[in-house]
Amino acid sequence: MHVESQSNDQPVLEFWFEFGSNYSYLSVMRIESLAQPAGVTVAWKPFLLGPIFRELGMHDSPFVLNPAKGRYVWRDMERQAKKYALEFRKPSQFPRIALLPMRVALLGADQSWISAFCKRVMLQNFVDDIDIKDIANVRRALTGLVHDPDAILAGAQGDDNKQRLRTQTGDALRRGLFGAPTFLVGDEMFWGDDRMEEAITFAAKSTPA
Amino acid sequence: MHVESQSNDQPVLEFWFEFGSNYSYLSVMRIESLAQPAGVTVAWKPFLLGPIFRELGMHDSPFVLNPAKGRYVWRDMERQAKKYALEFRKPSQFPRIALLPMRVALLGADQSWISAFCKRVMLQNFVDDIDIKDIANVRRALTGLVHDPDAILAGAQGDDNKQRLRTQTGDALRRGLFGAPTFLVGDEMFWGDDRMEEAITFAAKSTPA
Repeated sequence: MHVESQSNDQPVLEFWFEFGSNYSYLSVMRIESLAQPAGVTVAWKPFLLGPIFRELGMHDSPFVLNPAKGRYVWRDMERQAKKYALEFRKPSQFPRIALLPMRVALLGADQSWISAFCKRVMLQNFVDDIDIKDIANVRRALTGLVHDPDAILAGAQGDDNKQRLRTQTGDALRRGLFGAPTFLVGDEMFWGDDRMEEAITFAAKSTPA
Repeated sequence: MHVESQSNDQPVLEFWFEFGSNYSYLSVMRIESLAQPAGVTVAWKPFLLGPIFRELGMHDSPFVLNPAKGRYVWRDMERQAKKYALEFRKPSQFPRIALLPMRVALLGADQSWISAFCKRVMLQNFVDDIDIKDIANVRRALTGLVHDPDAILAGAQGDDNKQRLRTQTGDALRRGLFGAPTFLVGDEMFWGDDRMEEAITFAAKSTPA
């Protein structure tokens, strides 16, 4: 695959996302194509939404807990996907448990394959409608992107990496995140795929990290 | 004031709003300036958010119940207001009870003064930071727009009109509304100020009501 070299003096946009999150799907598919021409480096920040929602007193996705909002969200997703020329199928399971691919994404967050891997997992969830926590599907998402998918899978499931994902999720909570996708430029927060363009513009004007 | 004549063969966009809702503020200030050039007639649909939130199991605004989201929302409002060149001050009370001006808005929903009245009430809430349920403030918002503000206030507080607002709020619930602002073109729903442009575009392409 083609690997862009990222210069270290570019401004950085932190992209906090979850593979189970439908609006994160839109952002994962779009972010590099907007950030790169803007001269903004994307810092990929996978975190788990489940513990965040539980901390906020919700035992499930707000789109499940609030059926009226849930009905709306899938119609909105159809329209937004069409607007961005993205395929979309409402998942038969929502939200899907994403623990294994999230751990892989954390392990590869600063690797050249992160964007391509995340897109593949998102397409599994929101187009192919398949189980994204299944190890065979995660391996398939890695195949062709990394030299040794099984080594990555082993590393992702190591105790160190598991703990790092718990820590990163705790960081999300401490920094005030309440949903995904969320974009951070320092402490400046932008929530939702709808704010991605504004977040990138803000980042582009900021001082490099 | 200048009164636009609305031709009856224009497509109609239903605009469901609440004076207590901060994102409704952005839409109230912007909607006519976008809908008119698009050839879309705005149908003003005031409804009460309180009963909707209670029906969905919430005893207060989601921005109050979820402090992390609440903190974010006010920063987002500052940025959005700046983007649209609107004044904005975080209200010292939120959400403000808006029952009286909501009743007036219902009474005047198809009158030429509705847009100007709604803007004035919203500016009281989100710029002047004053009590919008206070009858003196509502009278002030009517002054200069209608021939006899006190007659309007009396009509707004009549039993018929009170019941109509309860009925309209029930309609909102039945049609699946879960927040404000919400835009409807037939059954096609658009939620949030972020979707107003898309709603107007969709309405413009629709068959006149």
